[in-house]
Amino acid sequence: MIGIDWGTSSFRAFRLDADGAISDRRAAPRGILAVEGGRFEEELLRQVGDWIADGERQVLMSGMIGSRQGWLEAPYVACPAGVAEIVAQLAVVPCEGADLRVVPGLTCTDAGGTPEVMRGEETQIIGVLEEMDGPALACLPGSHSKWAEVADARIVRFATYLSGEAFAALRGHTILGRLMRDAPIDLAAFDRGVARAAEPGHLLHHLFGVRTLGLFGALDETQGASYLSGLLIGHEVRAALPAGGATVHLIGAAALCDLYTRAVAACGARSVVHGDDAAARGLARLGRDAAWH
Amino acid sequence: MIGIDWGTSSFRAFRLDADGAISDRRAAPRGILAVEGGRFEEELLRQVGDWIADGERQVLMSGMIGSRQGWLEAPYVACPAGVAEIVAQLAVVPCEGADLRVVPGLTCTDAGGTPEVMRGEETQIIGVLEEMDGPALACLPGSHSKWAEVADARIVRFATYLSGEAFAALRGHTILGRLMRDAPIDLAAFDRGVARAAEPGHLLHHLFGVRTLGLFGALDETQGASYLSGLLIGHEVRAALPAGGATVHLIGAAALCDLYTRAVAACGARSVVHGDDAAARGLARLGRDAAWH
Repeated sequence: MIGIDWGTSSFRAFRLDADGAISDRRAAPRGILAVEGGRFEEELLRQVGDWIADGERQVLMSGMIGSRQGWLEAPYVACPAGVAEIVAQLAVVPCEGADLRVVPGLTCTDAGGTPEVMRGEETQIIGVLEEMDGPALACLPGSHSKWAEVADARIVRFATYLSGEAFAALRGHTILGRLMRDAPIDLAAFDRGVARAAEPGHLLHHLFGVRTLGLFGALDETQGASYLSGLLIGHEVRAALPAGGATVHLIGAAALCDLYTRAVAACGARSVVHGDDAAARGLARLGRDAAWH
Repeated sequence: MIGIDWGTSSFRAFRLDADGAISDRRAAPRGILAVEGGRFEEELLRQVGDWIADGERQVLMSGMIGSRQGWLEAPYVACPAGVAEIVAQLAVVPCEGADLRVVPGLTCTDAGGTPEVMRGEETQIIGVLEEMDGPALACLPGSHSKWAEVADARIVRFATYLSGEAFAALRGHTILGRLMRDAPIDLAAFDRGVARAAEPGHLLHHLFGVRTLGLFGALDETQGASYLSGLLIGHEVRAALPAGGATVHLIGAAALCDLYTRAVAACGARSVVHGDDAAARGLARLGRDAAWH
């Protein structure tokens, strides 16, 4: 089969053998926002048309390709949900020459009754389910970081934190960015930001401190962005970790997972990093139970 | 004397009689960022040169005019500070034909040792000191909201919240703004945002809820910005109010003070709104004790 992780800004395809192993892969900066006029079929054939011509008829896609802005709006499945609940609601996309399906997203409501959604992350979590021992916490860091509770091989509930996007907006469009210069990540400054998140005071107050530390020479221009990143990630991790602690299963790009590993450790919890291929493994796992015909 | 509140984006001048009453006033969108090439003396004479020619020699200025980007960098006075401490450190600005002075800013450090600063707000707080009965809390809402504890006619300590600037950055430069249309403030949506701030979950999580409520049709495009404003102000007020409650003395523009009044009431505390002339009264009070010669 072919598994495709098709998000907002990137396209990744995996050719998967019967055991779920990756026999070939392709990646392109062809996320759904880059595909004009809804020509998704054309794009799919451009990327993996040769694999389909080669006999791969089963194509399973996850991510924002199943959103209102994507190819076909797939439903949201209510949590708790595992492989069975997700596979039961795969959306079929009419496509000549291939049996094409889209993985549904997940939804739940938080304690206050506000809805939560994910699209794509559910497939990545399914991909690492077997490595989670008993009740566990999965974290998928990013623009909209997802934290999901997993028990009995199902995603029980989850919460999203806007940390990544807030970082970009605060850095790029507030006074905080004026004292910052582009620089590689400064781990010492990042750790200081994480530590600051544990101090009394709300995030909105801590943010102003990024400015004053710069004004008073306690944070130089090459450190500011790293400190701000640590401050936001520190707040996120501290808020998302349960009181009793937990092992956090980090799923995502290596550089970002490294930062979260530091922040989780600073909060006294343990983490395990899963590679970027969680999506491929999740697609293979879901594809195994899908009733292709 | 002449009192001038000269901030980043606006210039306000008050002609004050011996009793501190305002006998005339001028305002212009000529904040320090609008004055090119540091030509502050030229700008001052353009705005109030006739008053000076008329015999007003004593000119006292507060606000960002005393910052590194202003006319002359005035010091920061350490808290606790009242009229005596502030007057002792007025900065003298050389100016032909007038005895020109700048009010110093204030500084303190928060529980974690991070510095805090204000410039201009100290003068507004001094302006309403006489109306504060016993220990009190002053709040000056804005891009960088200030919350100050006052006791024995001195500012004991204060904290800044980046709420206003964070609102603009999040609304204008994240996905949250995509589901928002310009509209007058919707007080019901604002109140919902304030109520949301009291629910479990961190601000970074609540922010994502602004998106999902829009996606699920629970918040329409004309309500989104009001809800986001309530969410941020609700978080700020809740974090800034002491556990035992307090009377909050709000100082600022009427429309913004109205919103804070609602948020303070929702948190179970009482507030009093002081008008926009607090700066004029503070300048008059400081001018009374300044040793002009």
